Amino acid sequence: MQRTQFGAMACSIARTLDVIGEPWSPLILRDVYAGTGRFDQLQRQLGISRKVLAERLSGLVEKGILERREYSSRPPRYEYALTAKGLELCDILLVMARWGDSWLAGEAGPPVLHRHHACGEVSHVELTCSACGQSMRATDIDLLPGPGA
Amino acid sequence: MQRTQFGAMACSIARTLDVIGEPWSPLILRDVYAGTGRFDQLQRQLGISRKVLAERLSGLVEKGILERREYSSRPPRYEYALTAKGLELCDILLVMARWGDSWLAGEAGPPVLHRHHACGEVSHVELTCSACGQSMRATDIDLLPGPGA
Repeated sequence: MQRTQFGAMACSIARTLDVIGEPWSPLILRDVYAGTGRFDQLQRQLGISRKVLAERLSGLVEKGILERREYSSRPPRYEYALTAKGLELCDILLVMARWGDSWLAGEAGPPVLHRHHACGEVSHVELTCSACGQSMRATDIDLLPGPGA
Repeated sequence: MQRTQFGAMACSIARTLDVIGEPWSPLILRDVYAGTGRFDQLQRQLGISRKVLAERLSGLVEKGILERREYSSRPPRYEYALTAKGLELCDILLVMARWGDSWLAGEAGPPVLHRHHACGEVSHVELTCSACGQSMRATDIDLLPGPGA
């Protein structure tokens, strides 16, 4: 159990890490996002113990990222699906993938490509400013205290 | 010690999590990015044990995210600074902050605001497509196997 309460810090990064701040939760999110919602499939694909998977899934449901849905009633069977909150969290995965592709993929190149529905091109995410539309990277901003500081 | 080798998986998300897949490493990155590079300051700000901080810093240096720089020679004193690879990793923090602001900040609002150098506005990051410039979220793409699959 984590003793430090990351979710109680006045920081949106720390609070986000309280939801996905260990490796399995983002990978579960990745696989549910990619279409795997059933416990046994997730367990097999991830090569994770049933105990750890059950704990992580339960945590993600509790935090409102996943929901458990009945997909068959006789016998009752369940799968996990992303909530709206969970689907928006997947945006972070795209940015992680981009960084990993750039810095850790080596000569083999990106393991996964992203094809954008709107234009049909294989492309990657870029970060832009909600106000002016220009590029907005970590180097392009000043940090100011906000109302929730 | 982690037994699962996330860095060896053919997935840029898993590989990225091998670098920052626990809560402290991204928070150390956040504080170094925000201007705190000295061990004692980091330790105080984060409220982390010296042992855990030393381990995480050493891991981040080993993975090429931070570098240790001498800022005073008599006596020799060191601080941690972001490498180019580490600075690009901070882009992920902007996207984490955005999600945390949206979903976890509550009525108090965002703890930190981002002012964009290029336009001077307080704004947030949006994800756009490198090919067409339109919005590109997790819901807007198909996943295809890449050369490194």
